[in-house]
Amino acid sequence: MGRPGIIVITMGDPAGVGPEIIIKGFESFDSDFIPLVIGDWNVMTFYKKLLRMNTPLNLVSSVSEVKEGVVNVLSTTELEPEKDFIPGSTNSLCGEAVVNYIKVAVSLCMEKKAVAMVTAPISKEAIHKAGYSYPGHTELLADLTNTKKYAMMLTGGGIRVVLVTIHVALRDVPKMITKDRLRDVIELTAVEISRLYRLSSPKIAVCALNPHAGEKGAFGTEEIEIISPVIEELRSKYEVSGPHPADTVFYWHRNGKYHVVVAMFHDQGLIPVKLCGFDEGVNVTLGLPIIRTSPDHGTAFDIAGKGVANPKSFVCAFNLAAYFAGISN
Amino acid sequence: MGRPGIIVITMGDPAGVGPEIIIKGFESFDSDFIPLVIGDWNVMTFYKKLLRMNTPLNLVSSVSEVKEGVVNVLSTTELEPEKDFIPGSTNSLCGEAVVNYIKVAVSLCMEKKAVAMVTAPISKEAIHKAGYSYPGHTELLADLTNTKKYAMMLTGGGIRVVLVTIHVALRDVPKMITKDRLRDVIELTAVEISRLYRLSSPKIAVCALNPHAGEKGAFGTEEIEIISPVIEELRSKYEVSGPHPADTVFYWHRNGKYHVVVAMFHDQGLIPVKLCGFDEGVNVTLGLPIIRTSPDHGTAFDIAGKGVANPKSFVCAFNLAAYFAGISN
Repeated sequence: MGRPGIIVITMGDPAGVGPEIIIKGFESFDSDFIPLVIGDWNVMTFYKKLLRMNTPLNLVSSVSEVKEGVVNVLSTTELEPEKDFIPGSTNSLCGEAVVNYIKVAVSLCMEKKAVAMVTAPISKEAIHKAGYSYPGHTELLADLTNTKKYAMMLTGGGIRVVLVTIHVALRDVPKMITKDRLRDVIELTAVEISRLYRLSSPKIAVCALNPHAGEKGAFGTEEIEIISPVIEELRSKYEVSGPHPADTVFYWHRNGKYHVVVAMFHDQGLIPVKLCGFDEGVNVTLGLPIIRTSPDHGTAFDIAGKGVANPKSFVCAFNLAAYFAGISN
Repeated sequence: MGRPGIIVITMGDPAGVGPEIIIKGFESFDSDFIPLVIGDWNVMTFYKKLLRMNTPLNLVSSVSEVKEGVVNVLSTTELEPEKDFIPGSTNSLCGEAVVNYIKVAVSLCMEKKAVAMVTAPISKEAIHKAGYSYPGHTELLADLTNTKKYAMMLTGGGIRVVLVTIHVALRDVPKMITKDRLRDVIELTAVEISRLYRLSSPKIAVCALNPHAGEKGAFGTEEIEIISPVIEELRSKYEVSGPHPADTVFYWHRNGKYHVVVAMFHDQGLIPVKLCGFDEGVNVTLGLPIIRTSPDHGTAFDIAGKGVANPKSFVCAFNLAAYFAGISN
């Protein structure tokens, strides 16, 4: 047997909790895969000292130098702590740096030098200051991998949910539920759940948009006009059902009736994930040619550098990436 | 000590699961209060026979005749089974009958002959066929008690949630979140949670409408324009906080940080209740001069008369009414 594969971890914003949750989380990584942080050696050692942690760090200059049992660090920037960044306070240098980490990590995955990538949180504000217009990680990853169709899955507490719309005002949700978008999300879900969890025919439940699934049009017609027709169209190809009233479908999902739920909007899907798996939520991007997971929280600038960040969601993200990579080996 | 008080139970639609869940649920009633069904003796005995149950029924002609340890029945209609109704198939006679049961029950509560009322499910279709335009129980009860401001609370699985909007299409929700309605719901919640649970100053968490509470206006402005100003206005009178992102607030509520959550729309509030307390949800009407609870399901015509209806939610509704009545004694 050869050396275990590498899972690359992007360090995230130097001023956020990314370095801390990597350093703290390492001891809970439950996998033979070797972690390789794409980030900044100065930043990692700064936080290790600040947090008084014993986590073994290992500076490498290429993937061939990684060792088992340590957090390997490939340093692609040289930021000076408390000059180029202060915990809790980001800037354009940090924004430029995080985009670089992500680009390097994606290349390593695309070149098959790494089996999966896990991304620590970045700041939208910082990357915008650095001149990038991406709304977030997912769009940047899609761009770098030339991916047109993608979707976000959240998993935790026995819930797996894929979102049709995400960060939009509730009043804009109905008009964004189009047949094309819904069809794409259901198809992505079917294909990706099969691949990631090695399920031959995953059972997919699609949520309604309106209460009681619209009660035959009494409270909204999107079920009749959009959601049901798309489900009908796809039923011969996939095990897809719905539109299900969203207030009961998560109970049945959690009890094993469906492998995954497709939700129409952010809170419809996130309420169950956070309620059942509060600090263990993992974000998985479906549709990319690589495996990518991330914790379901942000940079948490308010607590950065204070030693109180909870690494659990990040650890779950690493372990889930390892699980997916193990299956796809 | 005198005789325990009476809790009146309206029988609900004769063609629905109401009679069955009363007969089945009786043995799980956990209270000294005496149950008195306002309904139809023929219907109750028909289902008792059909279901081969031994539940003791006792026909009374007035409240003074009720006995302990039995299901007392005040018969205000004389429907003939399989002629005037068939299980699963309702009609205008049933619609007329259920309105009558509710009127009698409300009178008994208003005259203090009963301490609380629990309502078994009715059919909107049947009451409309009988010529009534009420959209449901709650509006009829409000009308009968001359109540102008009321709200629905759902409770179950450690969740208590009061709804600002209920049975409306998602696309209509944003325009229905007005300052007046929100203020009324928060005030009703504060006053009624204090009364029903005997809490001197209940902690009320108000949900945001948009994901991430709108992220400072990036995804919707209702938090800035409507929800925050109302909370600010009421903060000196009540322990009210928010707008909280809806995906995390239920976790904190369930863990004791808040006594109750005010949700903006149906699924936002019902997803947590059904996920955490699937068959134990109870509907409580806030704002009425009487105590009223009900199970959180409907007539279930598809399973009526088949002996498979689950009485758990109804039992929870009875026991919660008894708990409230005990506190308010």
